[in-house]
Amino acid sequence: MRASQFLISTLKEAPADAEVASHRLMTRAGMIKKLGAGIYTFMPMGLRVIRKVEAIVREEMNRAGAVELTMPVVQPAELWQETGRFDKMGPELLRIKDRHERDFVVQPTSEEVVTDIGRQELRSYKQLPKNLYQIQTKFRDERRPRFGLMRGREFIMKDAYSFDRDHAGAQRSYQAMAKAYRAIFDRFGLRYRAVAADSGAIGGDLSEEFQVIAATGEDAIVYCPESDYAANMEKAEALAPKGPREAASKPMTKTPTPGKSTCEDVAALLNVPLQTTVKSLVLATDETNDKGEVVKSQVWLLLVRGDHDMNEIKVGKVPGLDNGFRFATVPEIVEHFGTKPGYLGPINTKKPVKVVADREVAVMADWICGANEEDFHITGVNWGRDLPEPDAVADIRNVVEGDASPDGKGKLAIERGIEVGHIFYLGTKYSVPMNATFLDEDGKPKPFEMGCYGIGITRLPAAAIEQNHDERGIIWPDAIAPFSVVVCPIGMDRSADVKAAAEKLHDDLLAAGVDVILDDRGERPGAMFADWELIGVPHRVVISDRGLKEGQLEYQHRRDAAATKVPAGEVFTFVKGKLTA
Amino acid sequence: MRASQFLISTLKEAPADAEVASHRLMTRAGMIKKLGAGIYTFMPMGLRVIRKVEAIVREEMNRAGAVELTMPVVQPAELWQETGRFDKMGPELLRIKDRHERDFVVQPTSEEVVTDIGRQELRSYKQLPKNLYQIQTKFRDERRPRFGLMRGREFIMKDAYSFDRDHAGAQRSYQAMAKAYRAIFDRFGLRYRAVAADSGAIGGDLSEEFQVIAATGEDAIVYCPESDYAANMEKAEALAPKGPREAASKPMTKTPTPGKSTCEDVAALLNVPLQTTVKSLVLATDETNDKGEVVKSQVWLLLVRGDHDMNEIKVGKVPGLDNGFRFATVPEIVEHFGTKPGYLGPINTKKPVKVVADREVAVMADWICGANEEDFHITGVNWGRDLPEPDAVADIRNVVEGDASPDGKGKLAIERGIEVGHIFYLGTKYSVPMNATFLDEDGKPKPFEMGCYGIGITRLPAAAIEQNHDERGIIWPDAIAPFSVVVCPIGMDRSADVKAAAEKLHDDLLAAGVDVILDDRGERPGAMFADWELIGVPHRVVISDRGLKEGQLEYQHRRDAAATKVPAGEVFTFVKGKLTA
Repeated sequence: MRASQFLISTLKEAPADAEVASHRLMTRAGMIKKLGAGIYTFMPMGLRVIRKVEAIVREEMNRAGAVELTMPVVQPAELWQETGRFDKMGPELLRIKDRHERDFVVQPTSEEVVTDIGRQELRSYKQLPKNLYQIQTKFRDERRPRFGLMRGREFIMKDAYSFDRDHAGAQRSYQAMAKAYRAIFDRFGLRYRAVAADSGAIGGDLSEEFQVIAATGEDAIVYCPESDYAANMEKAEALAPKGPREAASKPMTKTPTPGKSTCEDVAALLNVPLQTTVKSLVLATDETNDKGEVVKSQVWLLLVRGDHDMNEIKVGKVPGLDNGFRFATVPEIVEHFGTKPGYLGPINTKKPVKVVADREVAVMADWICGANEEDFHITGVNWGRDLPEPDAVADIRNVVEGDASPDGKGKLAIERGIEVGHIFYLGTKYSVPMNATFLDEDGKPKPFEMGCYGIGITRLPAAAIEQNHDERGIIWPDAIAPFSVVVCPIGMDRSADVKAAAEKLHDDLLAAGVDVILDDRGERPGAMFADWELIGVPHRVVISDRGLKEGQLEYQHRRDAAATKVPAGEVFTFVKGKLTA
Repeated sequence: MRASQFLISTLKEAPADAEVASHRLMTRAGMIKKLGAGIYTFMPMGLRVIRKVEAIVREEMNRAGAVELTMPVVQPAELWQETGRFDKMGPELLRIKDRHERDFVVQPTSEEVVTDIGRQELRSYKQLPKNLYQIQTKFRDERRPRFGLMRGREFIMKDAYSFDRDHAGAQRSYQAMAKAYRAIFDRFGLRYRAVAADSGAIGGDLSEEFQVIAATGEDAIVYCPESDYAANMEKAEALAPKGPREAASKPMTKTPTPGKSTCEDVAALLNVPLQTTVKSLVLATDETNDKGEVVKSQVWLLLVRGDHDMNEIKVGKVPGLDNGFRFATVPEIVEHFGTKPGYLGPINTKKPVKVVADREVAVMADWICGANEEDFHITGVNWGRDLPEPDAVADIRNVVEGDASPDGKGKLAIERGIEVGHIFYLGTKYSVPMNATFLDEDGKPKPFEMGCYGIGITRLPAAAIEQNHDERGIIWPDAIAPFSVVVCPIGMDRSADVKAAAEKLHDDLLAAGVDVILDDRGERPGAMFADWELIGVPHRVVISDRGLKEGQLEYQHRRDAAATKVPAGEVFTFVKGKLTA
């Protein structure tokens, strides 16, 4: 490709609304162009990256036996009403009426449509297993789209859906995708982790996120450097502390803590470690009658150590809270504790509440909590001696660095990640409500066991940039670079030798199947180099008159601090040897 | 590919709403699956065809120097308001409101967005010419979607847009696309014609349609078998007859024609050729004031020969009618002619009307027209003698078979076609209203000269089928067949020899880059052959135990009446030799 025939449109300034590096750099490098909030044109330079991502995903999906199809972007509402998602989903589901006032949606995913295809086309167990996928435009009407392609409204997703006879088959399909995803992410050339994720109400352990490691990632990833344990924060288990509870050694004492309503302030005031304090959170659950009216409410007090954070997903699995909970209202809190939030605790409540202690809190001795009286805390609190044992002990907190790894093989570390893939066992979540069945060997209809498997095709390049950039611009891995090699001639318009050498190297590399671009725009060297460093092409060859006279051309990888001199006659072979993809 | 790992879902019955062969066959062959009116899933078998069409289009567009990008499917209304299309377009433009009640459209084409990109990114004449294209999902909310992919609502289109400095540049860009389109359509392996089309108000001759020839086509294509002249019906010129008008030889006579209000009926009653009659059509034009109120109307009488049809596009170019016209109302007709439609003519009108005669009518002698009196016609009418010469003489009719070719090289023939491509010179139609300018060499801003170039990616397979099918199913050209070769083993589960031979042929062809499928489903031969004849794979090899014993395998092209025996050892080479793509 010659640059003059391509569309290169780099910008000096990043857009004012660009908060993250990938948004700034993709815009400045002319890869994306904003059309509206969260809606971007994929410009020629950016589209080349997206097409490479698509090609890798497609190859590995096909290799894993998945079959590609393309479902409509605009989908009639009827199927979405069958599963109830047409009403249940919030405004992120873009709803449309056509000229006949019929309801449609712009697909955010395609579970309903693919399940409908399954129930019509996969009639016999003999046709199973089957995995159907598409790489197609999706739309989610995010309330606050931002970060460029990281959280856009229109995006391209690869979504795959597996159909199996039974749970064992669904597990095999899931594992085949787990393997394919590792092959895909290995090929991208990015540092990533496959982390266990929570599978919600469906249960089982069949949910994994594929996270590209980046300091700017929105997700916390928990892993064990000494083993292959990795999970997201929602899922990572905080083990119960080893050994029994320490014996009580201090008397229980009501202590004035005027104006100190947080654990941090109390610990500072009393000059004790934050780890000796206990944080209170008040929740409520409701019982309803047939009409959906609340007939009875129960108030819950959840306790975690002062330096720990509550984990809502884990809370949602505590028996009694696993059918939904809400935060208690201030009147409910006053009614049960006799005071407003800030000084709450399990001792001397006005009315009984159910107490759930985090595993860590359950083994604490001589701890500090609110006195249920404004401006007072209680120190030296001990289970059994000063209050009954908790109603329940559970893992309800986020893990922290240094916690024991759940696999018993070392200590946990935490880093940040960007979720670009997710594989998920669905079970019969869609097949049962849509009555999607096949005839099994015994002649009886059975609902499909399903799985779904997504990759954010347009998010991946953004994640790659968050991980790989410097102050000059993007640094693409070879596999998804818009061009692998850029040939930069200096003074091509003045020197026939430079022109000839540059064109020959370009043509030779192109003939060898290398994705090469020749910068024939006639820009000055400084501007030319700045453009290609911004765009992030990994391999660069500079061809100058002086170099040709000396018989030495300059090669530089985007990560290299300086150029390497290469004998002119060996440049082709040298560059070919540098390419990893 | 092994059939067992693919998704093959053929149907015995065509859907009830399928009116044309391509709709019937694509549905029965499991290539498309209806989700809603005019909305289809491209099933795996159909998607393979679409991907091949896309690949050919992409290769040739790139070869012609066009640059690919991807514009959003969901587009903010603002740009569409700049050109006025947001309001002007009818309900076929699918309009949406997002969660913030802002207006959006689902793209039917992308002139506005690409012009916006041009005005921002193409700032200097040095960046021109540039041709930007996308292959992307489009939506048109057709009032009556039908014919499967022929007139769907959601479809895939390749749309390209060229930007030039001036008209000469735009002509070069147009010609480059004209050449690329011929290369594309040549590669599809279909019979097609590039036909001159009307370019409407923009003028010039720079508009061509690419029509796939098919008896079921919606469009009439006019061509000259003795030359390369070809045009669509709207555009094809009917030349003025050679030689002068014949002399009058009959007296003008008022003749009773009770109840005979059509030329056909009158000719039959009077036992004269239909070519001696003249058909009347009454139009009106309105003059309006600043407020858009009609202040004055003019009634027009248009005359074509009884066996000819009026051509509205041509009528719209007659001076005086070229700013818009409408059909006259019945009261207007009665006011001017003294009678209702059915017996109208240019003689003895009650009020003066402007008379436009078709070129053919202008040279007729002794003709027949309505008497402006119910149940009466006039025979033996002659221009000059019985009525004044017409106010205007123009080409206002459709050509018919046998008319002289406008290039003077023979006679015209007519066949039916399906429009699958259209290239069009736009001029400054979008750049001027959107103020899309570049800085020219003289430092002054000038509006882009533009062109647009479309190919109906998902319509093309349907057109291919309309042209190539028989009672058993589809017959794909090699270039866009879902698979080029199908290997059909008979009794693969019973015979290890058959299995081995079938797998070897499949593997060898696959390794040679041939798109081959091995039917390992274990279907009986009759059902298996019927499936592949329906799907339309062009090359088939049957491998049977008997054949292997005899050392002869059976090859059959989808168009062949019978199979050809090929020595078993030569099958691979034989099949390779048969492939054209």
